[in-house]
Amino acid sequence: MVRWQPAARERLQAAALERFAEQGFDGTTVAEIAATAGLTERTFFRYFADKREVLFSGRDEFERLFVEGVAEAPEGPPMAIVAAALDRAAAFFPDERRAWSRTRQTVIDAEPNLQERELLKLSALAVTMTAALQRRGVDATAAALAAESGVAVFRVAFARWIAVGEERPFDRVQRDVLAELRALVSGT
Amino acid sequence: MVRWQPAARERLQAAALERFAEQGFDGTTVAEIAATAGLTERTFFRYFADKREVLFSGRDEFERLFVEGVAEAPEGPPMAIVAAALDRAAAFFPDERRAWSRTRQTVIDAEPNLQERELLKLSALAVTMTAALQRRGVDATAAALAAESGVAVFRVAFARWIAVGEERPFDRVQRDVLAELRALVSGT
Repeated sequence: MVRWQPAARERLQAAALERFAEQGFDGTTVAEIAATAGLTERTFFRYFADKREVLFSGRDEFERLFVEGVAEAPEGPPMAIVAAALDRAAAFFPDERRAWSRTRQTVIDAEPNLQERELLKLSALAVTMTAALQRRGVDATAAALAAESGVAVFRVAFARWIAVGEERPFDRVQRDVLAELRALVSGT
Repeated sequence: MVRWQPAARERLQAAALERFAEQGFDGTTVAEIAATAGLTERTFFRYFADKREVLFSGRDEFERLFVEGVAEAPEGPPMAIVAAALDRAAAFFPDERRAWSRTRQTVIDAEPNLQERELLKLSALAVTMTAALQRRGVDATAAALAAESGVAVFRVAFARWIAVGEERPFDRVQRDVLAELRALVSGT
């Protein structure tokens, strides 16, 4: 008999992050996460394959936004398509998420395996974006360069957005970083 | 009693690559590599910690060239410093190395663990370059963007340089890719 759990997924994510931040990722069990959320382990496994998934499942949705952004951007030069995709993906980081993202980063920075996973996901994003740009008719080299540049802008903007004291919304930060890239690359 | 081995390191590298390409990375033992090179396992371990090291030890020297390139570039805007570092690192890929690099890539592409290692090394290179640029007085955001862009240029140039039919030297390919990045990023 399964009772409907309002926002069980969100409660599990918040509980997991709280535990990871307090006692480390390795030192936390799924049983503890479930108990903190007032749910059962069984419920946990309905939403996540394992505890690592709690930290990374959102990144799949983020990647989807990015790729849809490329697919649906108006006709234009490759970097304009990438800029549209970056704008679309910014919706994934509303201000309410900033505290969660900050804590998540602290947890990831403390654990080399999680850092590697994060790096590999961003590399995979660049590959996926390259393919999406090629489907828009961009040639292979330009697609790879535009995708890598877009991921670099995201990466730098994200680090800045979660920095202590930063209060601008994600899309503003990201546009500023893109403008900075343009100035840098054309400045020589 | 250790006899001096002319170019033992190079013989071991060539033998390892030949074996990896023929029977896969996982399917090859250090004993087979040593035998193919006409050397002992003991000699192998004087040069490499393990068989994976044969594929990646060169990348450390490549990273060193890159970082020295940043440190010793003439005063200039961040992307000019990165361009100088890319030029310096190009020396690591003379035409004689192209066949080796092609085969190495085939071996790496066949093995997800090796692909991950390669991606992580390139991510680490961007971090190292960022720090090297900051030591040149470049601020954190510009340093990260310039370093990521430089690594993107290298990555795309390398893929093009080892592509079937490509005959231009590495530095030419890389300068063309950097010019393409400039056109792309300033083009919108």
